[in-house]
Amino acid sequence: MSSTYGSKIKISIFGESHGNGIGVVIDGLTAGEKIDFDKILNQMARRAPGKDKTATPRKESDLPKILSGMLGDTLTGAPLCAVIENTNTRSGDYGNILSCPRPGHSDYTAFVKYNASNDIRGGGHFSGRLTAPIVFAGAVCRQILENKGIKIAAHINSIGNVCDTPFNPVEIDSQLIDRLNRSSFALIDENVESKMRSVVEDARMSLDSVGGTIECAVTGIDAGFGEPMFDGVEGVIAKAVFGVPAIKGIEFGKGFELSKMRGSQSNDPFEYKDGKVVTSTNNCGGILGGITNGMPIIFRVAVKPTPSISQKQHTVDLQKKENAELEIHGRHDPCIVPRAVPVIEAVTAVAIINLM
Amino acid sequence: MSSTYGSKIKISIFGESHGNGIGVVIDGLTAGEKIDFDKILNQMARRAPGKDKTATPRKESDLPKILSGMLGDTLTGAPLCAVIENTNTRSGDYGNILSCPRPGHSDYTAFVKYNASNDIRGGGHFSGRLTAPIVFAGAVCRQILENKGIKIAAHINSIGNVCDTPFNPVEIDSQLIDRLNRSSFALIDENVESKMRSVVEDARMSLDSVGGTIECAVTGIDAGFGEPMFDGVEGVIAKAVFGVPAIKGIEFGKGFELSKMRGSQSNDPFEYKDGKVVTSTNNCGGILGGITNGMPIIFRVAVKPTPSISQKQHTVDLQKKENAELEIHGRHDPCIVPRAVPVIEAVTAVAIINLM
Amino acid sequence: MSSTYGSKIKISIFGESHGNGIGVVIDGLTAGEKIDFDKILNQMARRAPGKDKTATPRKESDLPKILSGMLGDTLTGAPLCAVIENTNTRSGDYGNILSCPRPGHSDYTAFVKYNASNDIRGGGHFSGRLTAPIVFAGAVCRQILENKGIKIAAHINSIGNVCDTPFNPVEIDSQLIDRLNRSSFALIDENVESKMRSVVEDARMSLDSVGGTIECAVTGIDAGFGEPMFDGVEGVIAKAVFGVPAIKGIEFGKGFELSKMRGSQSNDPFEYKDGKVVTSTNNCGGILGGITNGMPIIFRVAVKPTPSISQKQHTVDLQKKENAELEIHGRHDPCIVPRAVPVIEAVTAVAIINLM
Amino acid sequence: MSSTYGSKIKISIFGESHGNGIGVVIDGLTAGEKIDFDKILNQMARRAPGKDKTATPRKESDLPKILSGMLGDTLTGAPLCAVIENTNTRSGDYGNILSCPRPGHSDYTAFVKYNASNDIRGGGHFSGRLTAPIVFAGAVCRQILENKGIKIAAHINSIGNVCDTPFNPVEIDSQLIDRLNRSSFALIDENVESKMRSVVEDARMSLDSVGGTIECAVTGIDAGFGEPMFDGVEGVIAKAVFGVPAIKGIEFGKGFELSKMRGSQSNDPFEYKDGKVVTSTNNCGGILGGITNGMPIIFRVAVKPTPSISQKQHTVDLQKKENAELEIHGRHDPCIVPRAVPVIEAVTAVAIINLM
Repeated sequence: MSSTYGSKIKISIFGESHGNGIGVVIDGLTAGEKIDFDKILNQMARRAPGKDKTATPRKESDLPKILSGMLGDTLTGAPLCAVIENTNTRSGDYGNILSCPRPGHSDYTAFVKYNASNDIRGGGHFSGRLTAPIVFAGAVCRQILENKGIKIAAHINSIGNVCDTPFNPVEIDSQLIDRLNRSSFALIDENVESKMRSVVEDARMSLDSVGGTIECAVTGIDAGFGEPMFDGVEGVIAKAVFGVPAIKGIEFGKGFELSKMRGSQSNDPFEYKDGKVVTSTNNCGGILGGITNGMPIIFRVAVKPTPSISQKQHTVDLQKKENAELEIHGRHDPCIVPRAVPVIEAVTAVAIINLM
Repeated sequence: MSSTYGSKIKISIFGESHGNGIGVVIDGLTAGEKIDFDKILNQMARRAPGKDKTATPRKESDLPKILSGMLGDTLTGAPLCAVIENTNTRSGDYGNILSCPRPGHSDYTAFVKYNASNDIRGGGHFSGRLTAPIVFAGAVCRQILENKGIKIAAHINSIGNVCDTPFNPVEIDSQLIDRLNRSSFALIDENVESKMRSVVEDARMSLDSVGGTIECAVTGIDAGFGEPMFDGVEGVIAKAVFGVPAIKGIEFGKGFELSKMRGSQSNDPFEYKDGKVVTSTNNCGGILGGITNGMPIIFRVAVKPTPSISQKQHTVDLQKKENAELEIHGRHDPCIVPRAVPVIEAVTAVAIINLM
Repeated sequence: MSSTYGSKIKISIFGESHGNGIGVVIDGLTAGEKIDFDKILNQMARRAPGKDKTATPRKESDLPKILSGMLGDTLTGAPLCAVIENTNTRSGDYGNILSCPRPGHSDYTAFVKYNASNDIRGGGHFSGRLTAPIVFAGAVCRQILENKGIKIAAHINSIGNVCDTPFNPVEIDSQLIDRLNRSSFALIDENVESKMRSVVEDARMSLDSVGGTIECAVTGIDAGFGEPMFDGVEGVIAKAVFGVPAIKGIEFGKGFELSKMRGSQSNDPFEYKDGKVVTSTNNCGGILGGITNGMPIIFRVAVKPTPSISQKQHTVDLQKKENAELEIHGRHDPCIVPRAVPVIEAVTAVAIINLM
Repeated sequence: MSSTYGSKIKISIFGESHGNGIGVVIDGLTAGEKIDFDKILNQMARRAPGKDKTATPRKESDLPKILSGMLGDTLTGAPLCAVIENTNTRSGDYGNILSCPRPGHSDYTAFVKYNASNDIRGGGHFSGRLTAPIVFAGAVCRQILENKGIKIAAHINSIGNVCDTPFNPVEIDSQLIDRLNRSSFALIDENVESKMRSVVEDARMSLDSVGGTIECAVTGIDAGFGEPMFDGVEGVIAKAVFGVPAIKGIEFGKGFELSKMRGSQSNDPFEYKDGKVVTSTNNCGGILGGITNGMPIIFRVAVKPTPSISQKQHTVDLQKKENAELEIHGRHDPCIVPRAVPVIEAVTAVAIINLM
């Protein structure tokens, strides 16, 4: 496994859904930075389940305990380790023998890769619960970025066919960012919330789930970050984002729409504005040649529908080596998009701090 | 700069458009593998310009010279270095002072990043010409993969609004792969070629350019490759693919379409077929939890229109610090999608070999 | 900070002497391996203090708690995280303002590097206590190596001027290895123990400390591991070994003695023995061109005297910016060499497993 | 193979003794730095063979050709690639089948590792000739370091039993450094030169070779560079140094001598001198806790005798699978220590620049 990310600031995620605890080690942070622990808790609360009917009613106790790297509110320079204990795991009540892999899940691929030795309880290391330490790491990194004037915000761009208004790619209001950063159901146009919730509720009532997209923006980043070729901003962000379960696509700026455009439409003209070079459009999503151009970085990710659905599904029985049917019990998020918003912000923060 | 990729097989790309030469060092190859040099040249010929009106009529002499790592047709285990000399560069005929950055190009971001010291002639290190050593590296890696039964093929999925037929995601014909691997204008449905060429020709006649998409498939790869989280197959491929200039999006399997689907539609049911676990659909693009599931890996990338167009464009004059207009002379590809197909195959080969 | 090591098996050490806990994340272990937890505890006990008068009488509770990566006695493939809580830290009873850096310690360099924000209590992240999670990681790795027939043993080569008998470099007895692996004062010739203990006791009585050397051997490793140049066996081991506090030198095979030899003396002749290529001497320490030659790997490290001594020492007062005198109170190991033996074995195990 | 080093400034060495060329790619250099090409040539001349009787009379044409990364005398920010063509290789006149591995050489280990496919002519990738591109890389890095006030100098510390005067570890004269940097037989006390040359000549006349030690110093480096644990200065330098063929040991400060000292002797007392914190001795070699303390970095390396000697030696015949005798013809350096001095300086420069 390689649950590590980063070269300057390295994060190393550990834990399994039903083990003793999950957490993260963050190596490379600058000593002396002040970290507001409440801000970390706020971000973790945004991701935590059980807030409403779009999410699973399971109760997770996500309070992170700092083992090292902080003294009071100050980073010491030592690796920062935070642990979240798994409190309500009942490991006794089911075995660890994978019989029927759930379609759309990592059950089967983990079974093959880990010689049937992986901890399958609750998804093990593949559980969405492992995004909690990612949010922790992101919450630390984004505070450091904010001290440099860099802000990160994401919103639910769409759930099913219901779409939010996109970011204005050339200028993103600071108050909007702050509002999104506090929201558990982050939308630019809050009027679409009820429609989106209906889509999720419909799926839930059908014992089904639904996907969506998330749009993310990074503002206040100067021109010149990122490297050409394989450490370009797109690649660095993509590698971080695809570390989040259920993400199956990413596009920067106009993304796939660019494929239908002509150069005269897609090229962003340069101009001077208040003595600074800007572009009058931002179809490139703030990145040219893999390097930031000083405009907001804009990207969207595709989130697949939660694979855990309560309908009967076709699968195989790996023990009996025959086709089988599967009904998953238990409570699952019919749509993980709202909870994935702070996770996308978090991995983006970790990616961006590695470009500095 | 960090023009390197890979942990097991590391490639390190060097060169500038108008320097003495470009090339690649490939470190980590297994000694004793036989490499067919003609197959390398064939792949490089597919990428080379000047074949028809979709491409620039410039003549590049792309013959790679092996400096080390091969003795006869056998890899020695030492780092493989190949150099392509830049023969027809006329460095005398223009200076190296960037005045007006071309919209959509890396001119401005490179100017900021490299303190105005980068070699701007022909785009320097950002030139599309640097994809030639990438194709070389890919051509070596794909031969090694083919010996393991793994094949990689891509095709022009769309140019503008004209679309090719997509791959059948659950079964890809070996003969189709071979045909695509030989083609300079790779299409599954060759009947769309004339329509696509018209779109490109229209753009060219309008002094404009046009974008497109490329679909790529990897067949014959067993279940179990890739790591969870940040070294998942999606992230590893994405990081490689975004190293290619002009790529602005990537999606795996159904990708962004998944965002509009329900779990009952998107989950790929497992079944036994000839004693092997397969999925009856392949919406996940052969990847679950970041790990291959044994089905073909399928992904699509978005290629933006060539930023070099001959129309007058708005930009800034960085010397005079004022707005300016720019007309780019010279001959440019009105559409780089056909030539980008072997480049996408190449970076995919480099990515896949790093998963082994 | 970068308290991480390894590319295939990555270990990430965290913790500070007086924080909430210390530990390690080990990423990349193969699922399905059986690990004997008691063997881990045995190794940790060898390093633990308080066993006799050569060591500090402080009591550390070094019982590691597994948070993830093991289910029962089996590795799951997920990152293995072990935490050791710091139980008897009394953080209230002294401040965190460095006034007078201890000579020979990292106090001053950490003060400069971490902007005076590092946790100085008990040495913080630089504390020798951080070698406990290293021993944990090594104890896991060496069990995996032992399953491949590779054993690692070290002994106290010298303390002050008292020397143990060195390993027979061409053949190392398996029973000797087992005996050393169980010993807390590991010696080949156990007759020198009383003399060595006298040297340590003399130093302790003089409120002083004393250094020594450790010799380490790796047996059962086949020819062909390691890479030429910068990932050679010497470099890989050296990087791991210099991660251990107080190590100031390393030499392989005859090491510095080779500098006084002639080639006709130092070259190890090859010969066939039982159908296998061996060398009749082993001056190269089992490594040629950075690659193992199938003979035991042999190296020695220099351990400086514990810098914490109770004599009055000259230093500076960083607050008052003037010269000062310092008397360190508290109990310290007058010689850390015996406890460093299992630590050297541990980092060697981590290094060797990264060569596989 | 992994002939790459570094994380911030990555060097990637390629080439084989009898291939078409050898060279280096340096990735990560800062654009805009001025590089004096003559200074590079001067350093390469120091390493080049054929200067006198201590070295082989073979003539190498070591003129490096810059393929990319420099425009005039200025770094462009693109990867810097330099190639040295192999001109006088006659590949036709001997085969590539290893029969009898030379004792002390990498012949056997490379044979095992590379499945007998490595290019054995002239040592292939293991040839000492590969240190030429290392010196090139070092010569670039040291110029950048010199602009920051950091200088690196090494001298022949000993050949056989003849020793030079060591550096004064607390203060190293700048003029001495400059003189050593220009010398092909670098000595602090030039009076020992004739004695040393006699030792080498004696070995040569006996168809033998002789080893030695090199001492290296880095001056002008501020306190605070390096990381605790595995990226400490000792480990970073050691990994670079062990990339040089024939190096079998390294010690920092007093090194192995520390093992015989007491803490009261080895601890370097701090004091204020001209308002700056210094140590009055420098037994730790300028490094505490893996971090520079502002004093000169001092280390010594052990160089084994050249394994190529003309005496008859015992070895095996790998084809016939029997013991054999071997007489190596051709001309070889009876002592590589003088030529290794600029190589050690070079890898040190590459290591130090990676700490910045």
